Amino acid sequence: MTPKIARFLAEQAPATPCLVVDVDRVEARYQSLRTALPLARIYYAVKANPADAILRRLVSLGSAFDAASWEEIRMCLDAGADARDISFGNTVKKVSAIAAAYAAGVTMYAFDSHEELEKLARHAPGSRVYCRLIVENAGAEWPLSRKFGTTVESARDLMLRARDLGLDPYGLSFHVGSQQTTTDAYEAAIARVGMLFTDLADAGLNLRMVNLGGGFPIRYRDDVPEIDQFALAISHAMTAHFGNDLPEMIVEPGRFIVGDAGVVSAEVVLVTRRGLKDDMRWVYLDIGRFGGLAETEGESIRYGIRTPHDGGPTGRVAIAGPTCDGADILYEKAPYALPLDLACGDRIELLSTGAYVSTYCSTRFNGFAPLGEHYI
Amino acid sequence: MTPKIARFLAEQAPATPCLVVDVDRVEARYQSLRTALPLARIYYAVKANPADAILRRLVSLGSAFDAASWEEIRMCLDAGADARDISFGNTVKKVSAIAAAYAAGVTMYAFDSHEELEKLARHAPGSRVYCRLIVENAGAEWPLSRKFGTTVESARDLMLRARDLGLDPYGLSFHVGSQQTTTDAYEAAIARVGMLFTDLADAGLNLRMVNLGGGFPIRYRDDVPEIDQFALAISHAMTAHFGNDLPEMIVEPGRFIVGDAGVVSAEVVLVTRRGLKDDMRWVYLDIGRFGGLAETEGESIRYGIRTPHDGGPTGRVAIAGPTCDGADILYEKAPYALPLDLACGDRIELLSTGAYVSTYCSTRFNGFAPLGEHYI
Repeated sequence: MTPKIARFLAEQAPATPCLVVDVDRVEARYQSLRTALPLARIYYAVKANPADAILRRLVSLGSAFDAASWEEIRMCLDAGADARDISFGNTVKKVSAIAAAYAAGVTMYAFDSHEELEKLARHAPGSRVYCRLIVENAGAEWPLSRKFGTTVESARDLMLRARDLGLDPYGLSFHVGSQQTTTDAYEAAIARVGMLFTDLADAGLNLRMVNLGGGFPIRYRDDVPEIDQFALAISHAMTAHFGNDLPEMIVEPGRFIVGDAGVVSAEVVLVTRRGLKDDMRWVYLDIGRFGGLAETEGESIRYGIRTPHDGGPTGRVAIAGPTCDGADILYEKAPYALPLDLACGDRIELLSTGAYVSTYCSTRFNGFAPLGEHYI
Repeated sequence: MTPKIARFLAEQAPATPCLVVDVDRVEARYQSLRTALPLARIYYAVKANPADAILRRLVSLGSAFDAASWEEIRMCLDAGADARDISFGNTVKKVSAIAAAYAAGVTMYAFDSHEELEKLARHAPGSRVYCRLIVENAGAEWPLSRKFGTTVESARDLMLRARDLGLDPYGLSFHVGSQQTTTDAYEAAIARVGMLFTDLADAGLNLRMVNLGGGFPIRYRDDVPEIDQFALAISHAMTAHFGNDLPEMIVEPGRFIVGDAGVVSAEVVLVTRRGLKDDMRWVYLDIGRFGGLAETEGESIRYGIRTPHDGGPTGRVAIAGPTCDGADILYEKAPYALPLDLACGDRIELLSTGAYVSTYCSTRFNGFAPLGEHYI
């Protein structure tokens, strides 16, 4: 939690639940990534947090943008982004969305299937396209499954086909999974990309870009490797497989840029024990899985928590949200301990919640309004 | 899908994704439950779908309401409900919500802990209170976990304490889990409730009400027992444990009332195979887990699907939503087969989606607006 957020919470005591984001911290994170990976262009993953204040700050810093939908593209344009700095990074797009993006001047599109390529050829003719490869997600705390990406063999055919369809076969992408905590995944993926570059060059097609995706981790309760270690692994692998003839590089960070710039302020609604002999307390907050903390599904992302009683004696807790839904539990198996003095009415903070909270939030599950948002 | 919904979709072709609910069907379901369980008062679980059109229709039919929050209570009041017909059924409530409900005339509150009871005594003095017991959820497709309810021993102490605090110790409740497909759970739970009634009567406290909760299942892709079978099991168990001195009975159906009154109309965004040798197609829709279909988590609730090509040859599919999130997959393991002719741009219907869709929907994940809603 930055001093600016701490001061805001102390002075304003905004209604809970709410998200408070320090936009200066967003800028600092953007700059730290630029320093670590000076050769890569940063395309901010808008889906992590599309708040206008964040997009405007990033526009002012020269960031480009990775958009998941036409609606996100429009948000970027409204924030002053140039259409040429926007990548339509979702490999699954409605025809109407492709047409709207193309009309707005967006020239760069992801795909990973023959069918999507045909749509792009028809509705975004001549555009730069890049194909997403399937890679291993081992080590990611929020892995990406088989939903996206195609095999190296298939990608080869697709890039040649892209050329035949009059598109610009720009490059390849992959995604190692979100909150990826090992550097190995990048090394393996870059090796495959390098081989496919060579293979396609032999077939007369020179690709120009490698999109390294996102996934850079942030610190929640456990330490993660520093961004420098990822940068080093990526640089080593790129040099090993491309030599001095490096292609353009793109990264698509979301969580890394905004995650630790945000804090959720919440209220304790109830603290109790379930049954007389239970040694675990249940702590109920006014925000839960359906109020924005969707990444606690399966207890995957484990946020740090601050309370007014930190420093006093603690005991094991389960932590749940305010709805009548039995699935609305943040942590039951994860070993959370909170102060014994914690009580109904206390305000607590969930740390590093700047990413993937304001947007996952449900419209009104159990009647609860979406969490408030403050960008300071 | 009712003929009225089919006609609406054919004539209006509303923008997708959207939910269409036949309010006459809601009424028919309400009446069928009333016929099956004439001795039980129906408290509609507002959380299942709080649309004003549904609440107004149910008010006109004499329904009572089970609300999860102050916001849901206000929706009921706005729809014309009498505050005395509203139960504040969430056992975890903010003090401000209790005070607002009490001020509005709500006189009936759930609880399952000592701490909540103290809050009720202070902010809703003299109110009718009922204690929620933990019961087995085996057989439920959306079980409710350890988050709610207390043990029989603890409930006994709490009801005596309620009297001492000046509250009206009204009764007991339990919940067998949502989409509960066996009648056994009711029998076991009623036996425990009956014993506790007797035990408390011996201690000089006469409870007056049994809240049987909700959970009555509806047909998705598989047959479920008819409501008459649940009614029979409940009547048998109540008679076995209470004889002719039956207490007031309450049921809290949500899914049963609105589930099969609704249909989601969606568009196919992409159909493709992942890799050259994959025999499973991936079908991407413009609605997914974060667009309202949250109950497909773990592939728990398996909706029926209609397509324009039904009747033709089919093949195995995985079905996913439109976002860049790898977790946004509806069905990958569940054995879904869809027509081989299914293609991008087709409109399909997800059946029996009237419950728990419009409210789970995220505010704007990946930029996508919440699904449209039509009540006809």
